[in-house]
Amino acid sequence: QTVSLDVDRAARCGFPEVVYGEGKPAPMIVEIIEAQQARGDASLVTRLDPAVAPILLNRFPSAVHNPVGRTFRLAGAGDTPSCEGFIAVITAGSTDLPVAEEACETLAWMGVRTVRINDVGVAGPHRLPERRDEFRHATALVVVAGMEGALPSVVGGYVGCPVIAVPTSVGYGANLGGIAALLSMLNSCASNVAVVNIDAGFKAGYMAGLIATR
Amino acid sequence: QTVSLDVDRAARCGFPEVVYGEGKPAPMIVEIIEAQQARGDASLVTRLDPAVAPILLNRFPSAVHNPVGRTFRLAGAGDTPSCEGFIAVITAGSTDLPVAEEACETLAWMGVRTVRINDVGVAGPHRLPERRDEFRHATALVVVAGMEGALPSVVGGYVGCPVIAVPTSVGYGANLGGIAALLSMLNSCASNVAVVNIDAGFKAGYMAGLIATR
Amino acid sequence: QTVSLDVDRAARCGFPEVVYGEGKPAPMIVEIIEAQQARGDASLVTRLDPAVAPILLNRFPSAVHNPVGRTFRLAGAGDTPSCEGFIAVITAGSTDLPVAEEACETLAWMGVRTVRINDVGVAGPHRLPERRDEFRHATALVVVAGMEGALPSVVGGYVGCPVIAVPTSVGYGANLGGIAALLSMLNSCASNVAVVNIDAGFKAGYMAGLIATR
Amino acid sequence: QTVSLDVDRAARCGFPEVVYGEGKPAPMIVEIIEAQQARGDASLVTRLDPAVAPILLNRFPSAVHNPVGRTFRLAGAGDTPSCEGFIAVITAGSTDLPVAEEACETLAWMGVRTVRINDVGVAGPHRLPERRDEFRHATALVVVAGMEGALPSVVGGYVGCPVIAVPTSVGYGANLGGIAALLSMLNSCASNVAVVNIDAGFKAGYMAGLIATR
Amino acid sequence: QTVSLDVDRAARCGFPEVVYGEGKPAPMIVEIIEAQQARGDASLVTRLDPAVAPILLNRFPSAVHNPVGRTFRLAGAGDTPSCEGFIAVITAGSTDLPVAEEACETLAWMGVRTVRINDVGVAGPHRLPERRDEFRHATALVVVAGMEGALPSVVGGYVGCPVIAVPTSVGYGANLGGIAALLSMLNSCASNVAVVNIDAGFKAGYMAGLIATR
Amino acid sequence: QTVSLDVDRAARCGFPEVVYGEGKPAPMIVEIIEAQQARGDASLVTRLDPAVAPILLNRFPSAVHNPVGRTFRLAGAGDTPSCEGFIAVITAGSTDLPVAEEACETLAWMGVRTVRINDVGVAGPHRLPERRDEFRHATALVVVAGMEGALPSVVGGYVGCPVIAVPTSVGYGANLGGIAALLSMLNSCASNVAVVNIDAGFKAGYMAGLIATR
Amino acid sequence: QTVSLDVDRAARCGFPEVVYGEGKPAPMIVEIIEAQQARGDASLVTRLDPAVAPILLNRFPSAVHNPVGRTFRLAGAGDTPSCEGFIAVITAGSTDLPVAEEACETLAWMGVRTVRINDVGVAGPHRLPERRDEFRHATALVVVAGMEGALPSVVGGYVGCPVIAVPTSVGYGANLGGIAALLSMLNSCASNVAVVNIDAGFKAGYMAGLIATR
Amino acid sequence: QTVSLDVDRAARCGFPEVVYGEGKPAPMIVEIIEAQQARGDASLVTRLDPAVAPILLNRFPSAVHNPVGRTFRLAGAGDTPSCEGFIAVITAGSTDLPVAEEACETLAWMGVRTVRINDVGVAGPHRLPERRDEFRHATALVVVAGMEGALPSVVGGYVGCPVIAVPTSVGYGANLGGIAALLSMLNSCASNVAVVNIDAGFKAGYMAGLIATR
Ligand SMILES: Nc1ncnc2c1ncn2[C@@H]1O[C@H](COP(=O)(O)O)[C@@H](O)[C@H]1O
Ligand SMILES: Nc1ncnc2c1ncn2[C@@H]1O[C@H](COP(=O)(O)O)[C@@H](O)[C@H]1O
Ligand SMILES: Nc1ncnc2c1ncn2[C@@H]1O[C@H](COP(=O)(O)O)[C@@H](O)[C@H]1O
Ligand SMILES: Nc1ncnc2c1ncn2[C@@H]1O[C@H](COP(=O)(O)O)[C@@H](O)[C@H]1O
Ligand SMILES: [Mg+2]
Ligand SMILES: [Mg+2]
Ligand SMILES: [Mg+2]
Ligand SMILES: [Mg+2]
Ligand SMILES: [Mg+2]
Ligand SMILES: [Mg+2]
Ligand SMILES: [Mg+2]
Ligand SMILES: [Mg+2]
Repeated sequence: QTVSLDVDRAARCGFPEVVYGEGKPAPMIVEIIEAQQARGDASLVTRLDPAVAPILLNRFPSAVHNPVGRTFRLAGAGDTPSCEGFIAVITAGSTDLPVAEEACETLAWMGVRTVRINDVGVAGPHRLPERRDEFRHATALVVVAGMEGALPSVVGGYVGCPVIAVPTSVGYGANLGGIAALLSMLNSCASNVAVVNIDAGFKAGYMAGLIATR
Repeated sequence: QTVSLDVDRAARCGFPEVVYGEGKPAPMIVEIIEAQQARGDASLVTRLDPAVAPILLNRFPSAVHNPVGRTFRLAGAGDTPSCEGFIAVITAGSTDLPVAEEACETLAWMGVRTVRINDVGVAGPHRLPERRDEFRHATALVVVAGMEGALPSVVGGYVGCPVIAVPTSVGYGANLGGIAALLSMLNSCASNVAVVNIDAGFKAGYMAGLIATR
Repeated sequence: QTVSLDVDRAARCGFPEVVYGEGKPAPMIVEIIEAQQARGDASLVTRLDPAVAPILLNRFPSAVHNPVGRTFRLAGAGDTPSCEGFIAVITAGSTDLPVAEEACETLAWMGVRTVRINDVGVAGPHRLPERRDEFRHATALVVVAGMEGALPSVVGGYVGCPVIAVPTSVGYGANLGGIAALLSMLNSCASNVAVVNIDAGFKAGYMAGLIATR
Repeated sequence: QTVSLDVDRAARCGFPEVVYGEGKPAPMIVEIIEAQQARGDASLVTRLDPAVAPILLNRFPSAVHNPVGRTFRLAGAGDTPSCEGFIAVITAGSTDLPVAEEACETLAWMGVRTVRINDVGVAGPHRLPERRDEFRHATALVVVAGMEGALPSVVGGYVGCPVIAVPTSVGYGANLGGIAALLSMLNSCASNVAVVNIDAGFKAGYMAGLIATR
Repeated sequence: QTVSLDVDRAARCGFPEVVYGEGKPAPMIVEIIEAQQARGDASLVTRLDPAVAPILLNRFPSAVHNPVGRTFRLAGAGDTPSCEGFIAVITAGSTDLPVAEEACETLAWMGVRTVRINDVGVAGPHRLPERRDEFRHATALVVVAGMEGALPSVVGGYVGCPVIAVPTSVGYGANLGGIAALLSMLNSCASNVAVVNIDAGFKAGYMAGLIATR
Repeated sequence: QTVSLDVDRAARCGFPEVVYGEGKPAPMIVEIIEAQQARGDASLVTRLDPAVAPILLNRFPSAVHNPVGRTFRLAGAGDTPSCEGFIAVITAGSTDLPVAEEACETLAWMGVRTVRINDVGVAGPHRLPERRDEFRHATALVVVAGMEGALPSVVGGYVGCPVIAVPTSVGYGANLGGIAALLSMLNSCASNVAVVNIDAGFKAGYMAGLIATR
Repeated sequence: QTVSLDVDRAARCGFPEVVYGEGKPAPMIVEIIEAQQARGDASLVTRLDPAVAPILLNRFPSAVHNPVGRTFRLAGAGDTPSCEGFIAVITAGSTDLPVAEEACETLAWMGVRTVRINDVGVAGPHRLPERRDEFRHATALVVVAGMEGALPSVVGGYVGCPVIAVPTSVGYGANLGGIAALLSMLNSCASNVAVVNIDAGFKAGYMAGLIATR
Repeated sequence: QTVSLDVDRAARCGFPEVVYGEGKPAPMIVEIIEAQQARGDASLVTRLDPAVAPILLNRFPSAVHNPVGRTFRLAGAGDTPSCEGFIAVITAGSTDLPVAEEACETLAWMGVRTVRINDVGVAGPHRLPERRDEFRHATALVVVAGMEGALPSVVGGYVGCPVIAVPTSVGYGANLGGIAALLSMLNSCASNVAVVNIDAGFKAGYMAGLIATR
């Protein structure tokens, strides 16, 4: 057997295993979701091949497919843990959207409320402070940026909550497929910034969600 | 004037500015601490030059100097925010100690309780589960590892709380000064792992402390 | 003439030359296999172009084509050396399968028995020890992992036999096409881990097979 | 003869050749300065070995030695071109000072007026706009930053003049000796940012000076 | 809303926001241009998808589409600032043309006159000095080169004005997608060379245009 | 005009300019060849787009098109310099052939005789010494190898003539597109090895040809 | 407590834990050795600080200190497993000696016989085959090489046993501290080569010892 | 025995083995030189430790020690092959001198005449053509440059002979210890440029010497 599903992940870690959709054929994903639903767990698939989505939707018509974020999400029979705070998901440019969508879908699957602030990168420095009221009371922030990846550092200076920074592969040339933004975020002079992998919207959403559901 | 102290950092971000000691002469550090104490703020210096420590201790005899973690810490007049949870700080090997000390000192300065678990790297895989009861109820974990940096991934699979991973420069050859551990942690298959800079014990402690004082 | 077949490889090294299929046209591969079969040698082609497979199968109908592992294998007239032990081939995730298949086909061609353990990566840390009985008596292990490449270090801590680690290019972003897993394995804190090239299932199988046929 | 002085540089390029002091013995530097003074040219030495400075000062007592910026500067007999505008030299942190000093000394040697704004990095985001009046009318800016190198992008969004960004090697771990800041600046989403080598205060000052003396 | 247009960019920085066309759908670009035109601003789109160009041209028939430089440019109702000097745009080889076109279109949009000198790379070293009269009186130079990126250093030695160097991804093998040329330009021994991102014709043009319109 | 042909290259450097075919449209190449032929020069095009070849052959029917090496070659009216020695072109594996073909075509265009030795890589170490008589009297060697790039070092130890080493991008994983072979060759412990760019068969042939026509 | 000794390593993995001496103070090492000796285990310290050696020798006078290999070795009370075969340890140059010594000491500690072949790098290609009789019957080989790291590939072609390749940091410039040799060995065209970390003589010896004691 | 001298190197390769002095103790070098002198061979030591030089000079008083190039050279009893041509050794800056000295000493040991042209880097572009008569008739050129490494490309365009380019580690920041110059030279648009390792004056001299003694 090719797949060893981590069945007691929810008991051990609070949330069930998430399916990394890249390269998985539709029947394999269907089988995993069915197994999760049978246990009453919610399901989340990330990096879904667009060609696989219709097959899944056909089998699970009540699910939510997000084509921009390439996710597929299905509630479980059990209750989602309710949580009081919210997460603000902030992007530097409009091209960073797919990564932000992946983060938001992950938070939705965890039952966490999100607020969205788009296209407030540092080249127009007045845009961020103007919208400060929308994010200052968030439990944690997810900040998504490509190119020079400066936004998390700037945002970090405005708030006292943890910032999960996601570098994206947006840009060209010396952006090195996102390495420039990644290094920038790792070297942030703001103390409240931790980093996840390039384009890893899922991971940023998951980390923020864990903080919000503490 | 060479230094522009970020005086309202505590109001904006919850904690006052921390002094990055590298290359700063003793009088400059003394001046900064005095300014902070005058406002009732607590003080923390990291990456302190060993030669500067005695001068500071002479001036501020009630402070705590940690020579392994290279930190210097002084309570403020005001109350530290009390917090209920605790942070477990876990190291892979005994050579990772200085980085863990820096994280613990930062957490102490923030008023957060810590639990220490040392030298439980993956080469002796039974050591970590044996000590699971010491860390399973932590609010968040700081996991410090050099060489292949595998420990945060393994720890992440045992808990449902956020893990702040700190790669260290411990190792040789293809460890590339910590880059190998850093990449390993960024690519963790555990969803609850976010990463800070190589040897950045301060940042990991700060992030974990923010989560604990939510 | 374009190809200089290394005809006495079997005498010198124990096994005949393996054909690296990448970019070789079908007639060239047919010619090489015919030359090997004429000498009574077994044949193995790796990295076979899927379009070339039907042509080879048509010419050598008794051969084994593995489309997942991209290999083509044909017994020789002579006896394969029999060997007593076995090799366990272990993968971290289901996406690492093609590399594991290449290793297993290589071992089959060498006449070595294999045991398979799939999808036991470190994010679900209980999965590996549960299956320890299946691999603890192996002569050597082949451990295949992408992303952070932590599995060989963990497996290495459970056994006293040599571990051949194969990094895969599975993952994204800061995995750098497999470099992250490669560096992780090279810096393993387990002493019994040696490493082959990224995605080099063939080489790992061959090394393990040599150890088993000692 | 070991040195081929580029004697008509001033005619061709507007300013005479600058001496790169690294590794040059005192007598060689003295000889070059004497040759320049004999032609009525001004002299500038960068990256001066601290042990060489007293020898030069002894020989040329009217010169200016800047030990922080490691420069040595001597007016020529001829007139410096007067220029109307000014250059603002801005640093992110106090550790970036030596690089800023090198830039300022270069501008002084070119006869260009400078304004200094220190320690206004993005972690305290309110500090920069507070001082906007000091730099908004500059002919061009030199912005010096290490760590994540975000400051030039932010500054670039506030002004309509060219920004010359200088990455510094300040930081540790994944700053890679300044590469992180360099990549950040090259990928700046601000359109008015061009970049010079890591720690190249001289080059940034020279570029800005050429713009100011147009 | 996905896009937060930086509407007062022209007031703050002298020129309105430029649209980075990569990945933006036609209706989004049309909407942005209409908003700019409504305010009387000029518009510039770079990195335009060839399939989007006809749609834009249909909607804005008086615009200029440059298919080699992948730009789209439309005058605003207001006056362009007139400027006296000119910019020389110099390429090393004919394959560097698209990047040079992007720079020239940017300068045209800024109302700055340009002179073009093509294919004068260092392998034929007599070509550049022969054409010196065409560029010696320029206000600034844009020098575009791939492969070893030596041209800006050589050009820099002939002039007293600022040189904006643009590395291109032209070449193969150890050119590393333009990194070789980029490093070469950053390490230029000519003092009057600053650098922009690989293939960043727009940025080079913009910087040069700012210098010319001072 | 887009192309500045380096017309007196033959006078200055001994051979006329070679056309780098990558990305050049057919009419541009035709025009260049016509100009060269009009002066009596021979012509060589490298990295020719396969789709352009028939157009050139139609226009210049007496030319030689090598589809494996992607070259196009046409004698000039003048005499080729005759030369006495010969160059041995040696490959490690059969996949290195295209690069060797490019080198051989370059040498043919220069009028230099070549000897070919294929597929004698170090994995079958007896193959090279067996063929030593074919290459020991060569004026210089061109050695082409991918993967670990060890062949030039080994060959270098057998001869007293200069060895021009060409790394190829053949291989996978940690070959890094040829960087592994390139580094290997640059660090050769054989003293008589100099290196050209990855896959640069043309340059290796040209260097060897210059040595042979001394 | 700072150290968590992996006490049942010998039961689990066949050999007790080896002490990585780097940075460990003398008393800590003494304590570990005493604990091991109390259980009847043998002890091995690698990367020993030269200043610590006399202290250890004083305490354990029957131990073997190898100053070139920087190891310290002490037999245990129990029997070493006897083994029939032997390991050949081969170096490319005389500067690779310290790494080979570390491998040999590790094998001695494991009770495995070794044969040494020094300074037979590929620049003198006749040296290796002349000594073939000394290594052809080995159970496995350890091959140590710096610079271009070609030796394991060549040796691999002569034998049918596993080759453990150790890249060393010997060389300069583009050897990148051993990365060139490492990449070379990972890309070996010989099938029987697996690789350990740069300068990791201990790991190579340990792997080879495990194969010999099967 | 630790050293396996390659005694018939001179017969096989034309010149005897050169001693790489790095890390070799004085008695070992003395022994090697004595062995070579006994056979009538000339001796050359490179990268000589300054502390070892006096010991060698004492033993071989007629030898030539070059402290800048760190070489030690001693004629043999036999005749040096006389050669007609000469090699021009050209440097970009005065800091590149040690590498040029190593090349010249190597050529002297080979009996080849050299011409020196120093400090003619591209920042002063008129300096090189002024001295063209000194190098245009050379049999081959050695061109030594650090920083951006542009000089070989420019020189290559002036001559028809082979150019051996040597990158040096001179520079700072993004020069990456010589990698920038190395990449520049590998990507040279001049066809007649081959490259050796960073700071490898010996290798460049040797290659040029082989060409001259053809
Ligand atoms: N987009 C993603 N990025 C990184 N990890 C993921 C992603 N989606 C799922 N995962 C993790 O991947 C693991 C499942 O991998 P697999 O067994 O290949 O399906 C789970 O442990 C998830 O936590
Ligand atoms: N998948 C593979 N990865 C690495 N090396 C291989 C692979 N398959 C075959 N080889 C080796 O490649 C060599 C044959 O290369 P070639 O002459 O190009 O067919 C043989 O020496 C094999 O040992
Ligand atoms: N700090 C510096 N960084 C980069 N280039 C410099 C520096 N100082 C001087 N230079 C340049 O270095 C060249 C002189 O180098 P050199 O001939 O070695 O003295 C001159 O062309 C200067 O423009
Ligand atoms: N400076 C140098 N750079 C590179 N290779 C060298 C150098 N000097 C000597 N060699 C080579 O190093 C080998 C000797 O290495 P070893 O056996 O360690 O003395 C000889 O084959 C020489 O050709
Ligand atoms: Mg925007
Ligand atoms: Mg331990
Ligand atoms: Mg799984
Ligand atoms: Mg500060
Ligand atoms: Mg051209
Ligand atoms: Mg072959
Ligand atoms: Mg030797
Ligand atoms: Mg100079």
